Amino acid sequence: MVTIKDIAKACDVSISTVSNVLNGKTNKVSDEIALRIKEEVKRTGYRPNYLARNLRSASTKTIGVIAEDLIVFSSPSMIEGIMRCCEGHGYKVVIENMRLFGRWHGDWLHDEQLFQSALVPVLSKMESMNLDGIIYVGGHEHTVHNLVSSNDLPIVITYALSADNKIPTFRLDDYSGGYDVIKYLTSKGHRRIGIIGGEYENTHTLNRILGAQKAMYEEGILFDPELVEYRQWTKEAGYEGMLSLLNKDITAVFCMSDLIASGAYSALYEKGLMPGRDISVMGYDNQDISYSLTPELTTMALPLEDIGNSAADKLIELIENPTPERIVTTDIRIKSTLIERKSVMKIKAKH
Amino acid sequence: MVTIKDIAKACDVSISTVSNVLNGKTNKVSDEIALRIKEEVKRTGYRPNYLARNLRSASTKTIGVIAEDLIVFSSPSMIEGIMRCCEGHGYKVVIENMRLFGRWHGDWLHDEQLFQSALVPVLSKMESMNLDGIIYVGGHEHTVHNLVSSNDLPIVITYALSADNKIPTFRLDDYSGGYDVIKYLTSKGHRRIGIIGGEYENTHTLNRILGAQKAMYEEGILFDPELVEYRQWTKEAGYEGMLSLLNKDITAVFCMSDLIASGAYSALYEKGLMPGRDISVMGYDNQDISYSLTPELTTMALPLEDIGNSAADKLIELIENPTPERIVTTDIRIKSTLIERKSVMKIKAKH
Repeated sequence: MVTIKDIAKACDVSISTVSNVLNGKTNKVSDEIALRIKEEVKRTGYRPNYLARNLRSASTKTIGVIAEDLIVFSSPSMIEGIMRCCEGHGYKVVIENMRLFGRWHGDWLHDEQLFQSALVPVLSKMESMNLDGIIYVGGHEHTVHNLVSSNDLPIVITYALSADNKIPTFRLDDYSGGYDVIKYLTSKGHRRIGIIGGEYENTHTLNRILGAQKAMYEEGILFDPELVEYRQWTKEAGYEGMLSLLNKDITAVFCMSDLIASGAYSALYEKGLMPGRDISVMGYDNQDISYSLTPELTTMALPLEDIGNSAADKLIELIENPTPERIVTTDIRIKSTLIERKSVMKIKAKH
Repeated sequence: MVTIKDIAKACDVSISTVSNVLNGKTNKVSDEIALRIKEEVKRTGYRPNYLARNLRSASTKTIGVIAEDLIVFSSPSMIEGIMRCCEGHGYKVVIENMRLFGRWHGDWLHDEQLFQSALVPVLSKMESMNLDGIIYVGGHEHTVHNLVSSNDLPIVITYALSADNKIPTFRLDDYSGGYDVIKYLTSKGHRRIGIIGGEYENTHTLNRILGAQKAMYEEGILFDPELVEYRQWTKEAGYEGMLSLLNKDITAVFCMSDLIASGAYSALYEKGLMPGRDISVMGYDNQDISYSLTPELTTMALPLEDIGNSAADKLIELIENPTPERIVTTDIRIKSTLIERKSVMKIKAKH
């Protein structure tokens, strides 16, 4: 097992220098050394020893929540789930907001240094607060590097992944979501089903497509790549995608977000077609949009409160039963729930 | 000026008992005495002496944000505005989430004891954190009682009111909002304008109606109560309200929320009418809904980030220039911005 000593030795610095860098006290260390240490930490997968946690001061019954951005629609509901669980267990919660999108829009997604410039001080502040554990609330499904607490706090992550695969992760079960959508549409007699998704390389898109393929396979429907529009998570993409699918003799379309579905509605109206009557439409997310559309959109409700609740439950388990050799299931997927409204109609199956 | 001594004397208790109650340490005090002290504080308008603040320990350059509920759509944007301002001034922010709706739905609105059971411990926790000041972020426009910091921290409030009228308050300018909507609609030639609002007794409804009346007066339009539907902040209310207005020869309707407008759209579609072509529709809030509707909804963007930013600016001013005799403008209204989309068309005015 890699220790802080190994990191110090490999980087040719003292243990306290490594500790400073992990603590975010980088003003005492040159940029070059700090970088060298961080890369060694990453390379070796070093993480602070769980046993050492027993040396910490008494429990404060407080956990810290680090939100990538409160302004992302998914964050408040996940925090609500976390706090509800904590309240039930007598834990208090402090919240830090990194404001990644508010500060930098999407720039931080491709700029690791920018991202770390937000993460390091927040982790450091959390470490000074004598907490019992940390939940990191992602605003976007990406891989988080250097999510380590130098004072050995247990950490759990939601809606994102950690480069350290020992950190338990709770996120959307996109695979079962895609599967459930297609199973539902086929139960209503649909067999030629268009799909409008996000970008091809997006993990949500990919996993929902995989689930959809499995459901089609089970229903004896040949997966037809011609019926899949890989676009973006926007209304315009839904509009364009729908126009493109209209020539392809589909009876239903699975839109991978409610916003995409709102664009599909727009294209249908324009052609004098009524969603839910002429073409069935399914959304995804169950945001307010889905309910405000006419007809109201059948969609998948993201289990955001469940994700928060499950993450807090796991964190409290790790806090109260610190067993370093425990094998934890590290990547937990939580299912969405189908909300049936009025945008899918039953048709007589054409075979 | 009322002092803590006066409160103690009037209640026949020691100064430290008053201090305990104001600090939320009510477990040391009987309910009856705590109530007596709180009522005396309320009656006399006592608030801790600003000068005493100089006795506090050195500035931590940290302010506390108390959110009534992060799950309310307006909270994250106000907090974004607060944090952006604080970052610019070198202040850190800690966030407390009271979860009033998450815990109790609307019950806390009419149950002062329930509300105080959430407020008192949060204020007390904030007081133990050695902060420089507090911003209270309302989730609903109501009057907050007993918003006092026993260690004399300056406090600013957003999106709600304080019973203590010395606490600066930043909220929506609903009056100018109603005015601007009608001025815009009349500039497009509309003179018979329906209105679908929230409940009659709601302050947002009332102030927007008053502003609308002023604009109508300026435009020489007689305000016709028959054209105003006082309903609720729901889609169903918009649907019903629109159906009821359709017999009344209107050319435009002002819906006091985007969700209400989505219901109006639904009624229009049902009658074979197209919003923005057959009847012009305006919304309010600029939530995601407004953009997802077809045609995209012309609406008023709530100045939530501005409200947060202005509140933080005022708080920092109070922290850095504590002048007890200052006359502060206590109730600041911030204007919404009209977002022009596609749901209002220009017509030839009928006179």
